[in-house]
Amino acid sequence: MSDARAITELAKRRGFFFGANESYGGVAGFYTFGPEGAALKRNVESAWRNRFTVREGNEEIEAPTIAPESVFEASGHLEGFDDMLVECGECGESHRADHLIEDATAIEEAESLPIPEVEDLVAEYRIACPSCGAPLAGRSVEAFNLMFETTIGPGSGQAGYLRPETAQGIFVEFPRLKEYARNKLPFGVTQIGRAYRNEISPRKGIVRTREFTQAELEQFIDPEDDDPPLHRVADVSVRLYPADEQDADDGGYVETTVGDAVAEGIIASEWVAYYLGVAREWYDRIGVDGDRFRFRQHLPGERAHYAADCWDAESEVSGAADGLADPTAGDWIEIAGFAYRGDYDLSKHAAHSDDDFTVFQQYDEPRTIERAVVDPDMSVLGPKFEGQAGDVADALRSLAERDPDAFDADAVTVEVDGERVTVDTDVANFRIEEQTEAGEHVTPHVVEPSFGVDRTVYTLIAHAYDRDRIDGEERTYLSLSPEVAPTDVAVFPLVSDETLETLADDVVADLRDAGLSVAHDDSGNIGRRYRRQDEVGTPLSVTVDHEGVEGEGPPTATVRDRDTTAQVRVPVADLPARLGAILDGQETVDDLLADYEQVDTDVTRT
Amino acid sequence: MSDARAITELAKRRGFFFGANESYGGVAGFYTFGPEGAALKRNVESAWRNRFTVREGNEEIEAPTIAPESVFEASGHLEGFDDMLVECGECGESHRADHLIEDATAIEEAESLPIPEVEDLVAEYRIACPSCGAPLAGRSVEAFNLMFETTIGPGSGQAGYLRPETAQGIFVEFPRLKEYARNKLPFGVTQIGRAYRNEISPRKGIVRTREFTQAELEQFIDPEDDDPPLHRVADVSVRLYPADEQDADDGGYVETTVGDAVAEGIIASEWVAYYLGVAREWYDRIGVDGDRFRFRQHLPGERAHYAADCWDAESEVSGAADGLADPTAGDWIEIAGFAYRGDYDLSKHAAHSDDDFTVFQQYDEPRTIERAVVDPDMSVLGPKFEGQAGDVADALRSLAERDPDAFDADAVTVEVDGERVTVDTDVANFRIEEQTEAGEHVTPHVVEPSFGVDRTVYTLIAHAYDRDRIDGEERTYLSLSPEVAPTDVAVFPLVSDETLETLADDVVADLRDAGLSVAHDDSGNIGRRYRRQDEVGTPLSVTVDHEGVEGEGPPTATVRDRDTTAQVRVPVADLPARLGAILDGQETVDDLLADYEQVDTDVTRT
Repeated sequence: MSDARAITELAKRRGFFFGANESYGGVAGFYTFGPEGAALKRNVESAWRNRFTVREGNEEIEAPTIAPESVFEASGHLEGFDDMLVECGECGESHRADHLIEDATAIEEAESLPIPEVEDLVAEYRIACPSCGAPLAGRSVEAFNLMFETTIGPGSGQAGYLRPETAQGIFVEFPRLKEYARNKLPFGVTQIGRAYRNEISPRKGIVRTREFTQAELEQFIDPEDDDPPLHRVADVSVRLYPADEQDADDGGYVETTVGDAVAEGIIASEWVAYYLGVAREWYDRIGVDGDRFRFRQHLPGERAHYAADCWDAESEVSGAADGLADPTAGDWIEIAGFAYRGDYDLSKHAAHSDDDFTVFQQYDEPRTIERAVVDPDMSVLGPKFEGQAGDVADALRSLAERDPDAFDADAVTVEVDGERVTVDTDVANFRIEEQTEAGEHVTPHVVEPSFGVDRTVYTLIAHAYDRDRIDGEERTYLSLSPEVAPTDVAVFPLVSDETLETLADDVVADLRDAGLSVAHDDSGNIGRRYRRQDEVGTPLSVTVDHEGVEGEGPPTATVRDRDTTAQVRVPVADLPARLGAILDGQETVDDLLADYEQVDTDVTRT
Repeated sequence: MSDARAITELAKRRGFFFGANESYGGVAGFYTFGPEGAALKRNVESAWRNRFTVREGNEEIEAPTIAPESVFEASGHLEGFDDMLVECGECGESHRADHLIEDATAIEEAESLPIPEVEDLVAEYRIACPSCGAPLAGRSVEAFNLMFETTIGPGSGQAGYLRPETAQGIFVEFPRLKEYARNKLPFGVTQIGRAYRNEISPRKGIVRTREFTQAELEQFIDPEDDDPPLHRVADVSVRLYPADEQDADDGGYVETTVGDAVAEGIIASEWVAYYLGVAREWYDRIGVDGDRFRFRQHLPGERAHYAADCWDAESEVSGAADGLADPTAGDWIEIAGFAYRGDYDLSKHAAHSDDDFTVFQQYDEPRTIERAVVDPDMSVLGPKFEGQAGDVADALRSLAERDPDAFDADAVTVEVDGERVTVDTDVANFRIEEQTEAGEHVTPHVVEPSFGVDRTVYTLIAHAYDRDRIDGEERTYLSLSPEVAPTDVAVFPLVSDETLETLADDVVADLRDAGLSVAHDDSGNIGRRYRRQDEVGTPLSVTVDHEGVEGEGPPTATVRDRDTTAQVRVPVADLPARLGAILDGQETVDDLLADYEQVDTDVTRT
């Protein structure tokens, strides 16, 4: 069984995730997180919040998932958020034309090709319907908008769409958010929530779904003034896969540090570089395997036109150990994107609405600037132009701003209501004035680290997935990091017995009081209970046995380490502090193993 | 300014919540939680999770918000999840006909009236359009389905709906969830997430929105065997407003305990009573004012037909102190519902899908039961009925189960393909057999505590909203409970000064390391900074001043209590432990005030 299949099977059996609504045949692209998966996902979200919101001093908001059409008219999603759809004339199945071409040819990024060319390629390569085998040549390829549409209110109502990204909920509220930030740049706003893409033909299980969770950070900066605290991550090692290496025949990774990558111009934006460094450390901490991780730069054809620079975080999820040195091998999925979006988003919303999407940036000292002004003599314009006099004066003012040189001649010509009108320059009272300005209105630029939570969860399971032999039997376990594991500690009474059960209940209560997430399991033999916890990645198991309650001393219990299956005997009273310290990252399991008596478990690792 | 208006204004100004997409004119029924509101909401969700999931030993899942039509066909939402819509013929505005009737007449719960009667009432009371004043008499009233509809996939695709409640995502996955619970009843599954109702004409701000967050618990029980741990909450005081008191002319509250209410039959279901008690304690803990809270029983006409008993938790949000004794006064909103749903949901899904929505309940000892069986003689039926013989045999088997007495006569009659067919009883080989059964398949019953998170957030703000005079100036503050307040502690350097700023940074870092949520503010005068924190409900503020760093001893800072504005001087080194203990609920502010030197703040409360 391939790793991918084994993981999907484990995920379903143990309650990480599974296709939703399977009692009704299911619908491609929708998954439900079971108890273990929901806990893992929540822990990932919480770890992300700690790092990207709290520690960065940013603010988090929660916007609705439905927004009216006007928002997506402005954002460009209504016009341009499309995939290429081809429908089979025979069986009616829908497919992504660009994916069919990528599968059938050596072409990558077929997405960036124009539709007529895609239609030609479908014919040229005699591409057939993957569902029924009928030829697709001659079928038209259409741009299919990926937003789920709905109607708000009764009757014809108002068109609404499920947000295709959480970001717009932040951009559209910028006029208010800047007030909360007291009009001071830089500031960052985050959001964790559902987003929706009506994929034509979702494949790849939970990696490409129609409903998913994003964790996005919109960092608003003054492009002229604000620098990131790059020094904090300058020494972080990163494996980069720049666009030119991807284009080269024999291109490879650039193993460097964030600081060097900026110094050498490999990463163009310091803000993007800063967040790549922060992300690299964060992924490491939550358990993404550094050997199966890279930052890949977008190819020029892949990049949105407004994005000055864009890098994806990618993880390898096939489990194949080969291909780690060869960037073109393995199964890499995008788990985050880091884009320098410039002022694209805020300018769009400023143009489409009446609100102010700028921040007033005070100069250090007031600046004197020259400005062309006119002060038209209305006692001349009035009699001459009557009702139009005001419009003529406005046109003169606007011309002065636009083209002051026009006032060098004796007469100036302006257009009013489609008619050309000429006025003596004297009448306009043109002059250059010096004005003192305290600051200026700046449209902030946006740097956007955007994380796919579901794909991060999948990566963590894939990278934690491991098998070994314990006591001659094959074992599957998830070596999840304690920070994200669904359960911190499992507690078992060794056998069904009132003394042991009472003590186990006390241990559970004490550990929960210490803030740990605890599972209590008293069914089945102890070996099966350990395997069950191994499969859901519980780092530590505590077993209460008779040996621990016999004799004079205070009660003890055994603590078992998931990864090594090593066991030590620990006084019950020490458990909350010691296990808490391990799960907080202040101590390690090895500290615990060193401090207490090792228990012989008759278990041989083979 | 009324409390409601003042709260809405404060919510917008300080970043709790505001109408979404206002740059585009907004759409009624959609709100965005700003930084303070999102934090408060998250804390409520987390407190709910601790109480209703973790402490109850339940499991939490996360299902998609979009589900296919078949799910809502089964659940009954497609057919019956309607409101009464009347459109104005003049201005085209849509209204809820039942609300118009309730506003214009003494009728309550107009929702439960049949549509023709509603149309008659509109005419009889000459109800006019609230928007333009045109008469609505004669306009047809229609059932408008409240689910947001969308299309999954390209082309005509497949109809999908945004879930109107999170519950269905649990019911529909029951066949898998029972496996995770190892087929043992009782067990509970929870979910916190968005739900959607396409309200005809949303009013009342954030109280009635089209997109909102629910926290739901589906408690699956064996109705014959499973009892709740009622003793845990038997002594909890509850204010009940039973249906018969609501119907009485001069009806009032019943002030009692959970245990007595069950003993006296006021609450019919012990499970419902148990969760009323748990909820009452929980509301108290997070800061719902007990004087402005009640449990109201559904009136018979209000109750879904499958719900044996149903109680709502309601909070009073107008701020009017009168009316607390008179149940018919004040502005009460539903913030949770507690319904005994029987086997309605699981039976519906079992009937509409092929899956098994039962749990096999092993008997303590195998039971012997008598079962009527037939073993039709096919050598007689075959020649007589030819192709229909099999159907005749099936009809006999089914009759034997349904009505064994029918086989007392010499001949039995069954219906096959609409035809009546008579067979000699001898041919059927009817007999009563004894069978031994190890257990039985039980369709669990469901008890559902369902909480509205947004309305809980609103209630907390409304109940925490307070005004007083400090130093002669009017002050507004939110006396939010430390468990849910958006920020735990604010830290200020008294003046701009390197020594103080460095110390303030250290204090912030130490408090954050201790797990507290900390705001750092160094702008504006100290009074304004206190007011800002008062308005967002931050329980404690720490100010670092020169007095605290002068002299020999270790540095100190002042700690200010939000509600009393009392201040004490505390060694900086003590802050993490002492403030942490207060925010964990282990100590109170009064303990702190008693243990340290009170600071004279020259502030007089008037």
